Amino acid sequence: MKDKLQDQINLKTKPIGALGLLETLALQIGNIQQSLSPILNNPAIVVFSGDHGIANESVSAYPQEVTHQMVLNFINDGAAINVFSKQNDISVYIVDAGVNFNFKNHEKIIDNKISYGTKSFLKSKAMQSDQYDQCIVNGKTIVKDIASQGTNIIGFGEMGIGNTSSSSIIMSYICKYPIKDCIGRGTGINDKQLKNKIKILEQSKSFHGSLNNIEDILSSFGGYEMVQMCGAMLEAYNQNMIILVDGFIASTIFLAATKINPNIIENAIFCHLSNENAHALLLKYLDVDPLLNLGLRLGEGTGCALAFPIIQSSVNFLNEMASFESAGVANKS
Amino acid sequence: MKDKLQDQINLKTKPIGALGLLETLALQIGNIQQSLSPILNNPAIVVFSGDHGIANESVSAYPQEVTHQMVLNFINDGAAINVFSKQNDISVYIVDAGVNFNFKNHEKIIDNKISYGTKSFLKSKAMQSDQYDQCIVNGKTIVKDIASQGTNIIGFGEMGIGNTSSSSIIMSYICKYPIKDCIGRGTGINDKQLKNKIKILEQSKSFHGSLNNIEDILSSFGGYEMVQMCGAMLEAYNQNMIILVDGFIASTIFLAATKINPNIIENAIFCHLSNENAHALLLKYLDVDPLLNLGLRLGEGTGCALAFPIIQSSVNFLNEMASFESAGVANKS
Repeated sequence: MKDKLQDQINLKTKPIGALGLLETLALQIGNIQQSLSPILNNPAIVVFSGDHGIANESVSAYPQEVTHQMVLNFINDGAAINVFSKQNDISVYIVDAGVNFNFKNHEKIIDNKISYGTKSFLKSKAMQSDQYDQCIVNGKTIVKDIASQGTNIIGFGEMGIGNTSSSSIIMSYICKYPIKDCIGRGTGINDKQLKNKIKILEQSKSFHGSLNNIEDILSSFGGYEMVQMCGAMLEAYNQNMIILVDGFIASTIFLAATKINPNIIENAIFCHLSNENAHALLLKYLDVDPLLNLGLRLGEGTGCALAFPIIQSSVNFLNEMASFESAGVANKS
Repeated sequence: MKDKLQDQINLKTKPIGALGLLETLALQIGNIQQSLSPILNNPAIVVFSGDHGIANESVSAYPQEVTHQMVLNFINDGAAINVFSKQNDISVYIVDAGVNFNFKNHEKIIDNKISYGTKSFLKSKAMQSDQYDQCIVNGKTIVKDIASQGTNIIGFGEMGIGNTSSSSIIMSYICKYPIKDCIGRGTGINDKQLKNKIKILEQSKSFHGSLNNIEDILSSFGGYEMVQMCGAMLEAYNQNMIILVDGFIASTIFLAATKINPNIIENAIFCHLSNENAHALLLKYLDVDPLLNLGLRLGEGTGCALAFPIIQSSVNFLNEMASFESAGVANKS
């Protein structure tokens, strides 16, 4: 199939390779779908939200209540992810994975609440083993439901004040890099706050000591929204969906998921390079190239939504462009 | 207006600056339109086509007849620019600026033909002074017509076998860089052909000697499609349109146009960084950042069409996102 796809790409009315990354994408997507005429069906983005005990250690520029306020903003279509998804005809699913707020069975929110926020990983495991398991199951269940509606391309976003801290320490454990290489300014902390964030994360590493198992790492530091995303990514691969990976947090979770199933990288598109400092290093560790580099650092799945039209273009050129032969254009002399 | 726009951007429900280049674009577009709620109306891409005498000196990987064959491909909706423009609701205008073919008044082709191709600049000026003037007028006329239909954002593409050679020598004259820094593989020439291209362009520089005036440079080396694009860009600024600049050739023409009216840079968006070697240096000379970096090297305006949804996103977030106040979200603590 790869050879046939490459032939089809090469015979389009353009110089060989002239569509750059779009050709790489077309090859990947055709290969995922085992088709010379792949289709992107009902694109979806799932935004997982959850609160973090670590947010009480002054690691973020924003107070914890912003998590639930932003969830309400999502369901009122006021956030960036809503605007970009609406523009590009992407369905958005909002999940309460464990926000510190009672949404009172709001019909637009998928209720996957594990509890009202994780414990602070400074002096405790963030979640218990059964909570971890439930997160994986919940994430998988959502993706199964969405797949049953015909969706074959799915992106994942997150909202959770404090979750860049979670991601940094998870990255540090998995990649075995020091905290200082895994950290950034998150939503925009200043130098003093950054120094505090590094101190808190280093103290947390001292408290937890050596950890190698992915479940141990994720349950020690992860947010509920992050572990649910991990389950969701694993299931998206099982459903043979195209997986859209957003910024620093989603990429950290993707990294964790590759340790459970390394094959998922075949279905993944890395939508953008975040402005969060450690993201470039993380993508390098994964040995992948991001599609966009727009200086985003917002999360919510916004990078997935913005990259979607370009991914659609890669499929469209494969399906719709004329070949040298069909157009009567002379090929390379 | 700039301060008001920046305030509006900063009060959206996201950390300050978290939308990166989209915030820069929103500020630029709002400022062009002097509006806190800018609108992109009837986006259009004009593809100028023309043949080059220099194509007979083996500077391209493709034979000259590919120019007219691709024009026929454009009007049959078979080329990459057709596919991407259709996807993004962009109108495409195909212009015969001087192709070496008789299209017999094809209704879908705008007939701006100056002649059946320029002369080879190896031993002659490519065009006469009156032909240059006519090109500028023709380019301006098309843009005036399109502006009268309400279009306020316009991109420019080109098709012309040999026109990366034209662009390289024009860049070399304007920037005063040696040919070797202004050259690339165009549609995909090999090492031997690249060596020949450099030789031909250096011989051409020797023949023409010192030139400083932009009209002299463009009429000595330009294609009809390139000079018409120059006129079109100048008029797009006069009409206060947003100007979408494509790859190496379009950027070279844009550079030339800035020497006629430096203000046009205020209205320009540099859609992508081409894989053509000299483009990065050219954008650096212009001191601008490209929006996309997808390894494209196709021309036709494809970079403009692919960048359009992201430009639309920048306008949409400005118009549609909730503010901290309207959404009841706590701002930075």
